Amino acid sequence: MLRWLGERWGNPSSIHAHGQEAREAIEEGRARVAMLLGAAPQEIVFVASGTEANNAVLRSVARHDRGRGHLVISALEHPSIRATAGELEAFGMVVTVVAPEPSGLIDAGKVAAALRPDTRLVCLMLASNEIGTLQPVAEVARECRVAGVAVHCDAVQAAGKIRVDVAALGIDSLTIGAHKFHGPLGAAALWMRPELELAPLLLGGGQERRRRASTENVAAIVGFGEAALHAAAELDARHRHLSSMRDRFETGVRAIDDVRVHCQGSPRLPNTSHLAVAGVEGEALTIRLDLAGFAVSTGSACASGTVEPSPTLLAMGLSAEEALSSLRVSFGMTNTMAEVDSFLTSLAEEVSALRRLAPPVLAHPRLGRGGLR
Amino acid sequence: MLRWLGERWGNPSSIHAHGQEAREAIEEGRARVAMLLGAAPQEIVFVASGTEANNAVLRSVARHDRGRGHLVISALEHPSIRATAGELEAFGMVVTVVAPEPSGLIDAGKVAAALRPDTRLVCLMLASNEIGTLQPVAEVARECRVAGVAVHCDAVQAAGKIRVDVAALGIDSLTIGAHKFHGPLGAAALWMRPELELAPLLLGGGQERRRRASTENVAAIVGFGEAALHAAAELDARHRHLSSMRDRFETGVRAIDDVRVHCQGSPRLPNTSHLAVAGVEGEALTIRLDLAGFAVSTGSACASGTVEPSPTLLAMGLSAEEALSSLRVSFGMTNTMAEVDSFLTSLAEEVSALRRLAPPVLAHPRLGRGGLR
Repeated sequence: MLRWLGERWGNPSSIHAHGQEAREAIEEGRARVAMLLGAAPQEIVFVASGTEANNAVLRSVARHDRGRGHLVISALEHPSIRATAGELEAFGMVVTVVAPEPSGLIDAGKVAAALRPDTRLVCLMLASNEIGTLQPVAEVARECRVAGVAVHCDAVQAAGKIRVDVAALGIDSLTIGAHKFHGPLGAAALWMRPELELAPLLLGGGQERRRRASTENVAAIVGFGEAALHAAAELDARHRHLSSMRDRFETGVRAIDDVRVHCQGSPRLPNTSHLAVAGVEGEALTIRLDLAGFAVSTGSACASGTVEPSPTLLAMGLSAEEALSSLRVSFGMTNTMAEVDSFLTSLAEEVSALRRLAPPVLAHPRLGRGGLR
Repeated sequence: MLRWLGERWGNPSSIHAHGQEAREAIEEGRARVAMLLGAAPQEIVFVASGTEANNAVLRSVARHDRGRGHLVISALEHPSIRATAGELEAFGMVVTVVAPEPSGLIDAGKVAAALRPDTRLVCLMLASNEIGTLQPVAEVARECRVAGVAVHCDAVQAAGKIRVDVAALGIDSLTIGAHKFHGPLGAAALWMRPELELAPLLLGGGQERRRRASTENVAAIVGFGEAALHAAAELDARHRHLSSMRDRFETGVRAIDDVRVHCQGSPRLPNTSHLAVAGVEGEALTIRLDLAGFAVSTGSACASGTVEPSPTLLAMGLSAEEALSSLRVSFGMTNTMAEVDSFLTSLAEEVSALRRLAPPVLAHPRLGRGGLR
């Protein structure tokens, strides 16, 4: 990437040598990202964020039908899917939201049962960005194919952590983002079956085979490709390291009273653990752990200046109180087993300290914004 | 920037210390970009490209009126304005396109004459991305204010090269992009009057005060801020260096037969020179100059795999043949007077060589894509 932020430059649309070098660099990135997904390079559309890719797919479907028809999404979807579906609903589409089971999984049968003759698209994410559960995307895609309905899969949280193969999933479009697996912010990709047409979200120049206007972010795409290359090569090793830390943590956390690990029996990402800590407000715990040197998140969507329980957790059947006592812990490749142990020690201390204070304070001025990504 | 691509990370929406550091970094960037424009930081919305900002403004206007009403754009606008206006027209808006005068300038009186009681927005760029002429934006904005019509100004090509002051321009919204003045790709800004509401183009998280969902591209925004800081401090010096090279070039080019510099008598950017080289196909000349070590562009929009004359030049009254014989030469801060002289020598040689070949070849397989940016 650094070469493309310094000595090298050039607009990939320019015909001079600098431009052509930039074009080659992004095409190399495209081939690498395609390889990570088992796709062909020309099926990859580079965009600036997972949000943009998800927005583009939903708006394109709506545009093809002049805003009519039916859409099915899971209640687990990222805000970029949920909010866009909400807007399309306001403009005349009908949206069905399928709730997850208490296991944190969407029931494929319930998705199939929600299909209607005018259903245009089903959106089901591969791994929940909040609880980490892996959804039955291939099973849902099989049912949808029989019914002639397209399936979009948000795999932002999954890519680089588990194998993602678009053919094995049997879906029609898929979103991944670089910064979730050691790539830079500013690069994401939308994969689409070659026979599908995308009505571009961004209009102007003819970049990305007329599927996304804007000069390509060359450095970010180069970094994305590099991240994809490494992820593909190291996937199994990463899975082992991440899940061994996660498992050690979840074993150790049993020593703390009244802590429940969500969805432990469900297929999950290797790197995240989602907890409910009874009697403790997640926001307060996050802040105390931050002061102790640990960056974790509540897992609740703090979108509008007030702490609100996560819609995902409520949809799974948790009470508002339990949802607000949540903590999402993610392990990264640079973490060590020793760090897992010292985190367990700090967690026990901070939970005890907070439980000595009653009642838990539910409003706090330092709020995060947006989704969990 | 480099710190934010390496040792530092963190999602600005996270409440832990890493997240808060990222938030501080982007807020510093916002203050710097605002200062370059004479604006307040909270009026700046960071986006990923100028195309995105331009698309967002037009779509927001259309959404407020459910796709009805009237829009005025100049024929000089960037494809991100023209294409979006075209789409809105297909969905029911009425669009008036105001052609430039042979001077390369839009006549403010003609814009005023195009206004209707239902006009929602006027789009006029500050500097043409093709011919470099500076448009009478302040004058148009004065007329529009009297009529109660909002004005959007695409200042992507102007920022960092001439002073851009949103208050002096009297406009309602404005687009600038980092990579046009030594900043990185992936960062652009939409400035809006604080009393205006933007219907977000990207939906999902609540970033950018709910005006643009997506995790902020921290490194790119930091680079954007740095570029803005330098541009503000060095604006006069840059103007002097760039215009002295441009003027030397335009004096020297008189020695080549049948070369015409467009819009030389009009107010222009200091860094570009737009030529018509009679009897020479611009594309072929560009390729020859590239081989000689000079990266220039034709200035024609090569959007669909065939060389088509620039709509901007045709709108100015040039013939298709003259439009296709165009060359856009841009000087940068790292260029020197000696390079201007050696470019003049090469240009004379390549023009002679091409004129010995007749007729000029109008189709060529190595085509750029998209707009001129």
